[in-house]
Amino acid sequence: MANDQSPRGRRGRRRDSAMPSPALAQPPFRQLKRSYPATSLISDDQVEHIHQASLNLLSETGLDVLHEGARAVMKKAGADVRDGEERVRFDPDLINNCIATVPSEFTLHARNARHNVTMGGNNVVFNMMASAPNCSDTDRGRRAGNQEDYRNFLRLAQMHNVLHVTGGYPVEPVDIHASIRHLDCIQDYITLTDKAYCIYSLGEERVADAIEMTRIAHGLTHDQMRDRACMFSIINTNSPLQLDIPMMQGVMALSEMGQPVVITPFTLAGAMAPITIAGAVTLQNAEALAGVALSQMVRPGAPVMYGGFTSNVDMKTGSPAFGTPEYMKAQHIGGQLARRYGIPYRSSNVCAANTVDAQAAYEAVFSLWGAINGGANMLMHGAGWLEGGLCCSYEKVILDIDLLQMVSEFLQPVSTSPDDLALEAINEVGPAGHFFGTDHTQARYRDAFYSPILSDWRNFENWEEAGSPIAIEKANAEWKTRLGAYEAPALDPAIREELDAFVTKRKAEGGAATDF
Amino acid sequence: MANDQSPRGRRGRRRDSAMPSPALAQPPFRQLKRSYPATSLISDDQVEHIHQASLNLLSETGLDVLHEGARAVMKKAGADVRDGEERVRFDPDLINNCIATVPSEFTLHARNARHNVTMGGNNVVFNMMASAPNCSDTDRGRRAGNQEDYRNFLRLAQMHNVLHVTGGYPVEPVDIHASIRHLDCIQDYITLTDKAYCIYSLGEERVADAIEMTRIAHGLTHDQMRDRACMFSIINTNSPLQLDIPMMQGVMALSEMGQPVVITPFTLAGAMAPITIAGAVTLQNAEALAGVALSQMVRPGAPVMYGGFTSNVDMKTGSPAFGTPEYMKAQHIGGQLARRYGIPYRSSNVCAANTVDAQAAYEAVFSLWGAINGGANMLMHGAGWLEGGLCCSYEKVILDIDLLQMVSEFLQPVSTSPDDLALEAINEVGPAGHFFGTDHTQARYRDAFYSPILSDWRNFENWEEAGSPIAIEKANAEWKTRLGAYEAPALDPAIREELDAFVTKRKAEGGAATDF
Repeated sequence: MANDQSPRGRRGRRRDSAMPSPALAQPPFRQLKRSYPATSLISDDQVEHIHQASLNLLSETGLDVLHEGARAVMKKAGADVRDGEERVRFDPDLINNCIATVPSEFTLHARNARHNVTMGGNNVVFNMMASAPNCSDTDRGRRAGNQEDYRNFLRLAQMHNVLHVTGGYPVEPVDIHASIRHLDCIQDYITLTDKAYCIYSLGEERVADAIEMTRIAHGLTHDQMRDRACMFSIINTNSPLQLDIPMMQGVMALSEMGQPVVITPFTLAGAMAPITIAGAVTLQNAEALAGVALSQMVRPGAPVMYGGFTSNVDMKTGSPAFGTPEYMKAQHIGGQLARRYGIPYRSSNVCAANTVDAQAAYEAVFSLWGAINGGANMLMHGAGWLEGGLCCSYEKVILDIDLLQMVSEFLQPVSTSPDDLALEAINEVGPAGHFFGTDHTQARYRDAFYSPILSDWRNFENWEEAGSPIAIEKANAEWKTRLGAYEAPALDPAIREELDAFVTKRKAEGGAATDF
Repeated sequence: MANDQSPRGRRGRRRDSAMPSPALAQPPFRQLKRSYPATSLISDDQVEHIHQASLNLLSETGLDVLHEGARAVMKKAGADVRDGEERVRFDPDLINNCIATVPSEFTLHARNARHNVTMGGNNVVFNMMASAPNCSDTDRGRRAGNQEDYRNFLRLAQMHNVLHVTGGYPVEPVDIHASIRHLDCIQDYITLTDKAYCIYSLGEERVADAIEMTRIAHGLTHDQMRDRACMFSIINTNSPLQLDIPMMQGVMALSEMGQPVVITPFTLAGAMAPITIAGAVTLQNAEALAGVALSQMVRPGAPVMYGGFTSNVDMKTGSPAFGTPEYMKAQHIGGQLARRYGIPYRSSNVCAANTVDAQAAYEAVFSLWGAINGGANMLMHGAGWLEGGLCCSYEKVILDIDLLQMVSEFLQPVSTSPDDLALEAINEVGPAGHFFGTDHTQARYRDAFYSPILSDWRNFENWEEAGSPIAIEKANAEWKTRLGAYEAPALDPAIREELDAFVTKRKAEGGAATDF
């Protein structure tokens, strides 16, 4: 595929990297906002029940915090930490005080300021899928994650305005040794994209490398970066009730550096959480609050997010089910809690389908419905997710981008200006007339409606004559065309040089040592 | 397929017709309620803009009312009707006074009282698809509507509890002559189902026959039926700004008889309506209010519904687009207007897809999202719709039933009782434990989660080994199995006899005469 990596494009002029590639018709990059109130699925009293139950859990039962350094921080802040025990208990006042210092909104900066986004409030941000071990397309089938596909997914994320943030490694490039993988992957984030990104909290060295590479990319000093959110990390608790070492290291290092962490329990009802929605969300809430509290203990006012990933399991197989009514309920209730606390909220576009058929689509749209109306500020896994997270699919990327663009269009305000009320046009047309030929229509029809990527609106005869195409086939054609139109964003050569030098040096040092 | 039409089933006992067939695992028949507020997509001020614009349209411009009798009723009620003109104008006070007498809720009675439903308020009712000229399944392909398929779709509607009401002829059986078709079709409604149904306003004779057959089915006198809503009719205005004769005949005859009419403009933005959402909904609103007003002029307090069917067109082909962001916006705004007026609201589950692929699913779920959160009380075309309404698909029926069941599950309240908060179970399991073996889980897992019809949650390897099935294939297997388990509902033999006699008599009389 043609990748024009120089700032001067084919047209011989500096290409503004936030302008859409001329080949790709798409909505502009824009900060989305939910213009209507999120849905309160349960009453405020019920939210209090869950809140109080979480506080009770944190103060009476507590969680096991495996990281000694984290326990020390918690103890210093007033948590109940006992010698020789990993169990930590948190007084309700301590939790409430920590919640109070969380910023309700913050800016996540991209290295291209045009791609900055706001988290929290009624802002809505969409991310690319993250963390799949496999990837697939309908030509080549399914394969283990690798650098080539990893890079392709980053290119697709970069070129689509509806994806605000890359969100993590779309697929895990397992062909790169784990000791240096983060170096290559973040280097690709910075060179192939100019959007904000997510780094993985897999030990202090990797986090330190990520901080340094991001500092270089943004051209900041260490102190400047402490006050400027430029990247984030997903912090999963080990449900139930356990906070592991790499994750706590991540919270501590990143909160200190003012880089947001997204505390996300993985509470599957009936498995790692109670089988009831209320019980699973109570557990989620307690674990999330513990992680949020740590971030504030480390640095009051550090940006942090509340993540929900509560769903049900398939009781036949024990595997997670996604995009289900239960998942949607949890999305909504999690959002109510996050809003109660004034903490920006993260949800996900997830499904359990194995291919891009009707199931993938309905599970995705249910997830989107649950996220948007549940008040999500950041949507993880916005594009590409298949197989409950085990695969990033090229065709699913295109379907999801289409769906996200539809949701974006729905979020655009509706005008009721006199011109839009169109009484003049209605009177001009009169009873039994037609609006197509009016000036009012002619002036607007080119941009009036969202133009879908995949939707086939031909009548049956024409559609059948064209070979009865189905959506996945069109998605396959689309990703290839689009990928072929990718253009790398501009990058200051001095930054590039410094970045490359850092990566080279760290690789020579062995990266983050592994025992394999 | 085995159809046991006697009240005594295979088991030798009277089968309660509202009990699910033992072969079919499904949620119970239940009145659904939206437990959370509908979404206000635009502000109250903006709703006023549209309302005022509609009133302006009705008083300054008016509509063409082709039916002389309707014009006479309107004139008598105070509308501006001029000799020799079809144009009728309505003073704002007249409109507002008519709106004031509309019942905000009413019961729609089925001949089996267990299948009664409530319209209005926060009630939610799902209907089967209506009015397709064609039908299809993946074995036999697409064919013109016919009595056999018509009856099959009624059977599927009857046996699925999530479909509250049949909603119209799922497919038009064009193999029955139009002069007597309504007699056969309504007879099938009454014998194959015991749920409420929709009749077509296609002239005074057909409406009178429908009233009589329904009266017989419910065992009512004419006077009793005048106070008991037992059937309904969809009244489409001829957008823009025209009310045709059969439709006005329907409003008048049915409102007099206390049978609800659902006034539904068909305002496609850019075609029969302005290209702007606000303009299309303004036109929809004016036309709907005119039809509603007529119903109240005929009989103050007659049950009536506000129907929306505003969508965009594909600007390339002019064909309607469905399940789009624009459609969803119109669903929401229409709902805000209906709630402002206190009139029960009708929306639809519609798509433009030609097959049951990802497109059909995402367009459907967007439609469902728009309907439920837009505040719809009655969802037309709940199951089966394909090709923008030109086809009722067996496979789509199953997909839609699954989706409706998921939405139903989402609408079930979430309990936050102490038992559901599950602190005891959480404490029992402790950090890093597992919930599956707990009493709390064991006591609940059988019924805890919605069990989907189509969703395949197997991992990729197992799924691939099983032949990589896609949703449409499973839907094909399912409808056949389910249809095979259909059992006809009980029907009083005396009623059956009277009904048959009426149909025979009317057929001998030539039904409703046609000129072909």
